[in-house]
Amino acid sequence: MRGNCLIVQSGGPTAVINNSVVGIIDEILSTSFTGEILGAAGGIHGLLYETFHKLTDITAQERYRLRWTPGAALGTWRHKLSSDDFKSIIEVLRKNDVRYIFYIGGNGSMSVAKAIDEYARVVGYELIVIGIPKSIDNDLLGTDHSPGYGSAAKFLATSVLDMKMDMASYTKNSRVSIIETMGRHTGWLAGACSLAEGQTDDDSQLLIYIPEVPFDLQDCLSKIVKANHEKRNTVLVVSEGIRKLNGHLVCEEDLEYDVLGRAKLGGVAAHLKDIVEEQTGISTRSIDSSIWQRSSIVLASKTDINEAYKIGRVAWQYAMDGYTGVMISMKRDVSIKNYHITYETIPLKEMAGKERYVPQEWYDAHQNTMTNEFKEYVRPIIQGEILIPMENGLPMYKVVY
Amino acid sequence: MRGNCLIVQSGGPTAVINNSVVGIIDEILSTSFTGEILGAAGGIHGLLYETFHKLTDITAQERYRLRWTPGAALGTWRHKLSSDDFKSIIEVLRKNDVRYIFYIGGNGSMSVAKAIDEYARVVGYELIVIGIPKSIDNDLLGTDHSPGYGSAAKFLATSVLDMKMDMASYTKNSRVSIIETMGRHTGWLAGACSLAEGQTDDDSQLLIYIPEVPFDLQDCLSKIVKANHEKRNTVLVVSEGIRKLNGHLVCEEDLEYDVLGRAKLGGVAAHLKDIVEEQTGISTRSIDSSIWQRSSIVLASKTDINEAYKIGRVAWQYAMDGYTGVMISMKRDVSIKNYHITYETIPLKEMAGKERYVPQEWYDAHQNTMTNEFKEYVRPIIQGEILIPMENGLPMYKVVY
Repeated sequence: MRGNCLIVQSGGPTAVINNSVVGIIDEILSTSFTGEILGAAGGIHGLLYETFHKLTDITAQERYRLRWTPGAALGTWRHKLSSDDFKSIIEVLRKNDVRYIFYIGGNGSMSVAKAIDEYARVVGYELIVIGIPKSIDNDLLGTDHSPGYGSAAKFLATSVLDMKMDMASYTKNSRVSIIETMGRHTGWLAGACSLAEGQTDDDSQLLIYIPEVPFDLQDCLSKIVKANHEKRNTVLVVSEGIRKLNGHLVCEEDLEYDVLGRAKLGGVAAHLKDIVEEQTGISTRSIDSSIWQRSSIVLASKTDINEAYKIGRVAWQYAMDGYTGVMISMKRDVSIKNYHITYETIPLKEMAGKERYVPQEWYDAHQNTMTNEFKEYVRPIIQGEILIPMENGLPMYKVVY
Repeated sequence: MRGNCLIVQSGGPTAVINNSVVGIIDEILSTSFTGEILGAAGGIHGLLYETFHKLTDITAQERYRLRWTPGAALGTWRHKLSSDDFKSIIEVLRKNDVRYIFYIGGNGSMSVAKAIDEYARVVGYELIVIGIPKSIDNDLLGTDHSPGYGSAAKFLATSVLDMKMDMASYTKNSRVSIIETMGRHTGWLAGACSLAEGQTDDDSQLLIYIPEVPFDLQDCLSKIVKANHEKRNTVLVVSEGIRKLNGHLVCEEDLEYDVLGRAKLGGVAAHLKDIVEEQTGISTRSIDSSIWQRSSIVLASKTDINEAYKIGRVAWQYAMDGYTGVMISMKRDVSIKNYHITYETIPLKEMAGKERYVPQEWYDAHQNTMTNEFKEYVRPIIQGEILIPMENGLPMYKVVY
């Protein structure tokens, strides 16, 4: 047990990602570890350009405020790595005597963590690399779910309820609201909106569309028109990655690409709004859940926050046990009735860079909603509310950098 | 003290409008009033077509759930009234022996309340009409502020903070986020976002644009470019009703009109996003605060909720004292340091149909933000948080209709 420890936040921000950072630090501070605790400034940028935050002396008050701050406080960055980059990274680690890396991120980030781990072994640099899952999209393989998902799911399901109440206010008109969720090529986030079903006594129709199942526009329009005849509102939840019957993205023609060469999704709700209004004449509103779904800590799930924190603590324990090249994995004990998670490990090479999709049998393609099995999977993850520290009537967020 | 009582919700929904309904009912139930308590189904529609909810026997549990439900539970509707309509309304009231009307709404609604009050007097129908202010826009004259505003203001200022944290995550890029607020032709809502200044330790630039002051695009672009050179992010808050230096709405060319003949505002952020990206090349995101700003009760201000409820109770007391043709008015006692509101009355004819603007001297046109005087006005109204009743991890909203 020698050298220093480096924490990296990678990929998109979530409401709870800073909890994993604080979890690691809190666990380290409870041990006799004498190295420095560093944070990569700007994710992979910190590794490439040797820019670190020194976190060893971060105060208890700062750690507390960080737990209740959304976004990646150490900073994150999108960058496509070359093999030269990996060489530089090992040099930077060697120079700073970093022997433990905690890589908090999603699919792409786990591929980077895996590559660093492998490269270190090739060049004979003693290093422990632990991946920590983080994804509002919940698309990581090898874990029951990913920290960040529960809070985004709770935000989105609540948004559907807020939307239903807003629409129900206009009792003499029936209308359509289209809510767009993130999720890339998976429907975990859009699917979570099914939890809004049966939660209120309004009679609106809720239709959910996920990327795993082709989007049938004509069937959707018929259902909207039918509800309208019955003077009922329709809430349409669409995942940003939904595809037409021919397999093309619904917004195929408007695609842009990010620095990693991945299609920038989004704009589906606005696109469908025009089609619905044009083809049915029914007043329609489109709503982009935008940054709220990943940044609204006020509506975060207590379960999610606790798990994001716990997974950080556990990560250090596995590192101390000598594990490397693994991601911490959440396993749900399905043999008992109550929700219970154990924290295990999965080799990065078994899951990195892959995507986990919603099982088709968890989607009811006839009613366009999720099955009870899906709901039972998500429900425990959104449980519990928090009251975040407030000052002057507003959240008191903390940025480290 | 005879006859029945009718409660009308009118205009757009807010997060707290149902609190005023419950306030009236709770106050009535604490007295010896023996008439029925009715709710107009769908606002003015209920009055025109004699469709009422019977609220006399509403249970304590239902009233409790209503307090924590956003949206107009009795229903609301937009409709332009003719003089024949007023005749029908009095007939409906007479037939149902309605002697007390509580009209909860904004500017347009107060004009309707005033007209009903005057028409009743002309035809010799004994009637008491009390207006209760409701507006997230805060544009009603004759009251320190309007219930609904504080919660929307708190939501928007928090959104700016969430946005700042999201942007701060990407430490290596500086970018622009444009948040659009409602507010029609007034800047009370956009201005409230100034409360986010100084609340966090990030270094982004916050620029606020309100309709009362011409929007100088070139100056705005220069400020964005300057911040970008300094590697700082910019958060741009734009009110939906901002106007160019030539007096035209920024989105003039895309205007649609509602049934009341009023221009439908909105789309300014998306419009400006394209301009900013085109003219500066800086990555820009536009965010429409959409229904959240008026429907997110999870982020409601406790002060606002309590005031919306209290104003309902007070309204009944003034009705019992024989007041009619008045709106309940909130007066702030500025002679003491602490925030204190008294509930008085103002004749509807003095304020109905008029708009209250942000005083120009409360805007800092050089820095594009609000002055301390404005902030001191808004800050007390956003104070206090609530924990709304939850079930299965989600709000348990109640619809009456």
